Amino acid sequence: MLRDGAGSSNGGGEWLRPMDAEQLRECGHRMVDFVADYYKSIEAFPVLSQVQPGYLKELLPDSAPRQPDTLDSLFDDIRQKIIPGVTHWQSPNYFAYYPSNSSTAGFLGEMLSAAFNIVGFNWITSPAATELEVIVLDWFAKMLELPSQFLSTALGGGVIQGTASEAVLVALLAARDRALRKHGKESLEKLVVYVSDQTHSAVQKACQIAGIFPENIRVIIADCNRNYAVAPEAVSEDLSRDLASGLIPIFICGTVGTTSSSAVDPLPELGQIAKAHDMWFHIDAAYAGSACICPEYRHHLNGVEEADSFNMNAHKWFLTNFDCSLLWVKDRSFLIQSLSTNPEFLKNKASQANSVVDFKDWQIPLGRRFRSLKLWMVLKLYGVENLQSYIRKHIRLAEHFEHLLISDSRFEVVTPRTFSLVCFRLLPPTSDRENGRKLNYDLMDGANSSGKIFISHTVLSGKFVLRFAVGAPLTEEQHVDAAWKLLQDEATKLLGSM
Amino acid sequence: MLRDGAGSSNGGGEWLRPMDAEQLRECGHRMVDFVADYYKSIEAFPVLSQVQPGYLKELLPDSAPRQPDTLDSLFDDIRQKIIPGVTHWQSPNYFAYYPSNSSTAGFLGEMLSAAFNIVGFNWITSPAATELEVIVLDWFAKMLELPSQFLSTALGGGVIQGTASEAVLVALLAARDRALRKHGKESLEKLVVYVSDQTHSAVQKACQIAGIFPENIRVIIADCNRNYAVAPEAVSEDLSRDLASGLIPIFICGTVGTTSSSAVDPLPELGQIAKAHDMWFHIDAAYAGSACICPEYRHHLNGVEEADSFNMNAHKWFLTNFDCSLLWVKDRSFLIQSLSTNPEFLKNKASQANSVVDFKDWQIPLGRRFRSLKLWMVLKLYGVENLQSYIRKHIRLAEHFEHLLISDSRFEVVTPRTFSLVCFRLLPPTSDRENGRKLNYDLMDGANSSGKIFISHTVLSGKFVLRFAVGAPLTEEQHVDAAWKLLQDEATKLLGSM
Repeated sequence: MLRDGAGSSNGGGEWLRPMDAEQLRECGHRMVDFVADYYKSIEAFPVLSQVQPGYLKELLPDSAPRQPDTLDSLFDDIRQKIIPGVTHWQSPNYFAYYPSNSSTAGFLGEMLSAAFNIVGFNWITSPAATELEVIVLDWFAKMLELPSQFLSTALGGGVIQGTASEAVLVALLAARDRALRKHGKESLEKLVVYVSDQTHSAVQKACQIAGIFPENIRVIIADCNRNYAVAPEAVSEDLSRDLASGLIPIFICGTVGTTSSSAVDPLPELGQIAKAHDMWFHIDAAYAGSACICPEYRHHLNGVEEADSFNMNAHKWFLTNFDCSLLWVKDRSFLIQSLSTNPEFLKNKASQANSVVDFKDWQIPLGRRFRSLKLWMVLKLYGVENLQSYIRKHIRLAEHFEHLLISDSRFEVVTPRTFSLVCFRLLPPTSDRENGRKLNYDLMDGANSSGKIFISHTVLSGKFVLRFAVGAPLTEEQHVDAAWKLLQDEATKLLGSM
Repeated sequence: MLRDGAGSSNGGGEWLRPMDAEQLRECGHRMVDFVADYYKSIEAFPVLSQVQPGYLKELLPDSAPRQPDTLDSLFDDIRQKIIPGVTHWQSPNYFAYYPSNSSTAGFLGEMLSAAFNIVGFNWITSPAATELEVIVLDWFAKMLELPSQFLSTALGGGVIQGTASEAVLVALLAARDRALRKHGKESLEKLVVYVSDQTHSAVQKACQIAGIFPENIRVIIADCNRNYAVAPEAVSEDLSRDLASGLIPIFICGTVGTTSSSAVDPLPELGQIAKAHDMWFHIDAAYAGSACICPEYRHHLNGVEEADSFNMNAHKWFLTNFDCSLLWVKDRSFLIQSLSTNPEFLKNKASQANSVVDFKDWQIPLGRRFRSLKLWMVLKLYGVENLQSYIRKHIRLAEHFEHLLISDSRFEVVTPRTFSLVCFRLLPPTSDRENGRKLNYDLMDGANSSGKIFISHTVLSGKFVLRFAVGAPLTEEQHVDAAWKLLQDEATKLLGSM
């Protein structure tokens, strides 16, 4: 059909009409069916793609087609060439990294956002995009019981970033520039940033981008006795040494739900340290922030009162399609001072309160998609209570997996479970560390190569540790049980061959 | 339906199933019809949203709903509350800024990308995402006849960034870090960046982020006798002065199709300057790059041989939904050195050639969507020849508008048209500049307030100039004629009342 419509464009008479509404309708319906069928059959594919590097180059031509192809040929290519190279993050058997949630509501939001296809760099380019974002981020702040300073009605406010990396980068830039305004711009070489060895690498990347000197990034070894959270005393020690050396501490990042083991850093203590030294306190709750909409997990955010910025990814475990990373700040003027290219903007700070928000000045890029639509739809079509149930279900499934592990003495639960991540390993027959490493690598590799599940790993105190993160929207108890059966069988095979 | 499915989750029996395939199918079909109907009726809406700031707060509740709402209620809200606040970038009567193209193929690509919902930070997270991106960017480089060093088979390669802002930022970071490695990291305060006053503000923002000292950003006044392209002699003059002062020039940005007037900077000369002083030469062809797939416009890229990086936005005028900004570099190792957090990566640079690409090290964020799908689909479903015709059609429509302007002596074409943008103004009855400003502001405001078209403005040599950019996918000659009629009528009204 597309070929017919397009073919007639060549004679100079009828032009190609790439936005013909009826053509879009017909093709769109076909794609909806394709996607629904994909989800129905998703368990038939290997969760982790099994292709070899360079596989696609063998299958596609060397240059773009001169003439249009048909929609049938496109679907054939997707099935035969693309899908074998897809790792199926939406599979119920996906337990690697942290999840990336799609949902019907999120999918509808992506469709509508793609249809409007606005470039919402300021208010007038689509007032609804800016205003819905402000409103929905305020809703979400209330769901998380963030302090009222983080609301748009105060001096703060929320904004949708693409990723947690961008969120921490804009926070760090605000902290850097605040310090440089105070101490002079030549003092960049003195600015110090504090993280733990469990902090996400995004902070290191942000430091590289912001020009923080590599030797001024303090990577504090997390405390294995605190489930790999950082000890505030260790931060204070480094900080005292830095102050004595004439350096300028500017930024602490605390994590709620670290990537390795979902540890929770001691926010109140880190907040006190930051406050005492006029530092920016950023909280990265990219993964575990979702759990904190449940009253019984909210206490993990205690201490957020002292934070300058707080971030969580709705695109991880909150049914909102990637990308949708939520950042709140206590004082938006710091973001704008770093990211606006209009030097006049702060001349009359008071008047800012009444003017419209231009989110381009809260982020790295200029243009931005209408991302609040999908988050709004998730909240509206599921409702807070169902979303809480959704989170609790995954945590219960992780608890279930933990119980299965405990029932089999060949395995060890490495760190106490906090949310929906379980860190475990198969105990090596000897206490040899290397042996444990190879054994658990082989266990992971065997399980992932089967195509039946996908798990990932981390390293804690030198131990090679397996990660089992529940959070894919389709995961049910049967999938956890099947994964456990597979891991037990692999373990039996491996231990038997030793 | 969603309410029914979700309501049963509360009793602890059946859980909410946000990814039920049949539910997604039913809702997806409804959204496809909604979108197709929206495009069919798009001319019924005011192109530029006419709402007042804060309008949406009056219409939505103060907090997120506890209980789920129905799909019917969602569509009602979209129609009654969201759409009035949308500025319709896809309207055939949209002539503001530069276009943001949607298309059936691009829309299908967004749908499939949202369905897979991968977070493609490295190869294994979905090999198809990385490999399709490499292949399609190589295709596109060949379409643009970029030098072979920009291909993935050489030391360079292409990558999809979110926006041109991110593209120029990663290029600047690479340039900054290359210079700091050579001159020492304390020399940041000496690094100088060269732009013209017509260069996009994204470069200034990139400089702020990268920590370039504000006094070291040379903003060279573009030459009004060269249609507001920069004069290379002016760059050389500033550069000589800076060298004499002991400063270190690191970066020149040349533009093909400036935002104000679609001017083309003299790339060969700028490239020679950059080469002579070991500077990074970045080319921003965000808008006009699309035109250069037509042989008759390709000469505007002459000089790209000397560039270190080249950027164009497929999401502007190439039927690929936002965001999809294409960046090519001549030596990818410079990007990776700035953006990888793995200090080991370059230890054996030779081995890099054979390993897989991890695009996280070519961009600011870690996670990335499967954006190559939509670009691949646009190329596959339309074919290069139709895409060339699509571009030519818009340029012809702009030429048509220019002829209409010339036929009416009350108007002036301010700069010669190069691509699909026409800069013009209504001549004031006196030569008074302020008079011209108010007259043309009123003309723009009257036209935009009618809701029938949306045009934007710029300021060139102090003159308030109107911009008429053809490029929305649905625009036909009838829309250009109607816009012209509207502008003529507004002009008659305004001149009559003076």
